[in-house]
Amino acid sequence: MADIVEEFNEYRQKMNEKLLADNNKVIKRIFNLDTNAYMEGALDVKTKELLGLVASAVLRCDDCVKYHLETSYKEGLNKVEVMEALSIATLVGGTIVIPHLRRAYEFWEALEAGSDK
Amino acid sequence: MADIVEEFNEYRQKMNEKLLADNNKVIKRIFNLDTNAYMEGALDVKTKELLGLVASAVLRCDDCVKYHLETSYKEGLNKVEVMEALSIATLVGGTIVIPHLRRAYEFWEALEAGSDK
Amino acid sequence: MADIVEEFNEYRQKMNEKLLADNNKVIKRIFNLDTNAYMEGALDVKTKELLGLVASAVLRCDDCVKYHLETSYKEGLNKVEVMEALSIATLVGGTIVIPHLRRAYEFWEALEAGSDK
Amino acid sequence: MADIVEEFNEYRQKMNEKLLADNNKVIKRIFNLDTNAYMEGALDVKTKELLGLVASAVLRCDDCVKYHLETSYKEGLNKVEVMEALSIATLVGGTIVIPHLRRAYEFWEALEAGSDK
Amino acid sequence: MADIVEEFNEYRQKMNEKLLADNNKVIKRIFNLDTNAYMEGALDVKTKELLGLVASAVLRCDDCVKYHLETSYKEGLNKVEVMEALSIATLVGGTIVIPHLRRAYEFWEALEAGSDK
Amino acid sequence: MADIVEEFNEYRQKMNEKLLADNNKVIKRIFNLDTNAYMEGALDVKTKELLGLVASAVLRCDDCVKYHLETSYKEGLNKVEVMEALSIATLVGGTIVIPHLRRAYEFWEALEAGSDK
Repeated sequence: MADIVEEFNEYRQKMNEKLLADNNKVIKRIFNLDTNAYMEGALDVKTKELLGLVASAVLRCDDCVKYHLETSYKEGLNKVEVMEALSIATLVGGTIVIPHLRRAYEFWEALEAGSDK
Repeated sequence: MADIVEEFNEYRQKMNEKLLADNNKVIKRIFNLDTNAYMEGALDVKTKELLGLVASAVLRCDDCVKYHLETSYKEGLNKVEVMEALSIATLVGGTIVIPHLRRAYEFWEALEAGSDK
Repeated sequence: MADIVEEFNEYRQKMNEKLLADNNKVIKRIFNLDTNAYMEGALDVKTKELLGLVASAVLRCDDCVKYHLETSYKEGLNKVEVMEALSIATLVGGTIVIPHLRRAYEFWEALEAGSDK
Repeated sequence: MADIVEEFNEYRQKMNEKLLADNNKVIKRIFNLDTNAYMEGALDVKTKELLGLVASAVLRCDDCVKYHLETSYKEGLNKVEVMEALSIATLVGGTIVIPHLRRAYEFWEALEAGSDK
Repeated sequence: MADIVEEFNEYRQKMNEKLLADNNKVIKRIFNLDTNAYMEGALDVKTKELLGLVASAVLRCDDCVKYHLETSYKEGLNKVEVMEALSIATLVGGTIVIPHLRRAYEFWEALEAGSDK
Repeated sequence: MADIVEEFNEYRQKMNEKLLADNNKVIKRIFNLDTNAYMEGALDVKTKELLGLVASAVLRCDDCVKYHLETSYKEGLNKVEVMEALSIATLVGGTIVIPHLRRAYEFWEALEAGSDK
């Protein structure tokens, strides 16, 4: 069940390394910003992860949703909280978000199944 | 040929059941609205299905397109009508709709092939 | 009340003439296609106008919505039919469509007020 | 300075009343859901307002941003928190979010100026 | 005629200064990146400005289009080149780009009129 | 390694032939325009391909990105130029473009690997 998590992470890591090795400064700085933006500030890390999750969901970026689901999971957010955030995304973004909601739910189950091992 | 139809429906149904069992009220109500909105009203069901199809196509949601293609097919709309609706979607949404048009066409063929069995 | 209709049409016509006088072939052909795509075919003109309206609404293009509202009005579609189409757009496209719904409603009222004169 | 707040609220309220009086059930239920989704649940109201704000910002809906800015302001969120949420929206949604950021900042200043009166 | 250029630049500059004075690091770095990304590299400045223009047009961000039109104008690109780039944007992004094309054309005329003074 | 290129081209060609054989005039003309728009004009073919690439990337259409990557490759654009164009797309379109950047990079590598054979 956790395979979709591993598969996602492996491809993501492999290609990110290639992109960063390529030495395009704009891309490197955007990657760098992406790490910094979710660090604790006036808002705590959990809230920021939920913001990243909802932004990714309404823009319908499955890989971005998966990334923020995994970080949310590691930060200790539970399924009810995550689904509540995603329900707001579905309302704001409309029924076109539903197919992404199905895949997000499947990924969350894989995250939970993986940590049970 | 009809396998892509079955595969789509099975995954969709399985995950929808999980989402609805989860008891998030906002999500349940959106699912409920999604059923009601396409019922006959001032506009008939066929017209509403084409509206849902075109909205899905310009927003480039393959799963939503598949869903409305299947319902359109069951409602008796023919390929010429469906393609005419999708041509408007391609004009309004631009050439980025074309890859979705290819997949829509493939799905429609699978629907027709499936009913020949 | 009908001023927002006139203002929209005047600006639209003035700029379209400039764009077409400019002799860019791609743009001219897209304008030409835009006229042809909504002509009667397997689907009637009313249905096509509603398809154009819903595509415009979910893509949140106010000017496109106005254009299709005006053509829908001239084709004899009534407010209940138009609002039913727009309700599907709002469901598919989410609550971000609502501000466009408010402006669409205002424009429709102006169309009706204008024809009362 | 607070005029842009009043102007926004007046138009919004006037048109919402018309839309709801019109008795389209799908639209009425979406409006109803929109109220319920931001009520306290597993996540508190402040977090939900920030989720609505970020979703609105990446989807570049100025009116939706204004609405959530006003509610965030009333809920006691401060400018640093709101700007931190909007900075995540700008990173996720790209530089096309910046014009909306400018208008959001102006609206927030109007909210603060209005409450000084 | 050049007033829409001045008005755009004044508001843009005033709000950018406020945003940058506000000291949100993520926003400041995105602004900084936005300057660096369009500098000469493997691609020349003119090409990069056209890329920024087309990206802005298909994402339908009027203010971003205006900004890149002005920079394109200053870099010596002519109307035929700019319109050719915008015709690709209209084809890729669909007829919903047309209202933005009208406003882009008007802004370009204002840029040309302004430099005649 | 070049298999993802072949797989993409085969499916694309097969379905395009079906779509064109279907005789929907609007779709046929859009396909026709799509060929003409990228021909040399005031802008050269390389620049136009990069415009098509960036438009496709910010609209997050993987198949469109692949198509323009292949044409860019055939036109003799190199990886640094293509990545510079894509870095602008990532800045303008935000971090949601990154998953598409990963897939674009993989496809470009396959194009280069394929021509080494």
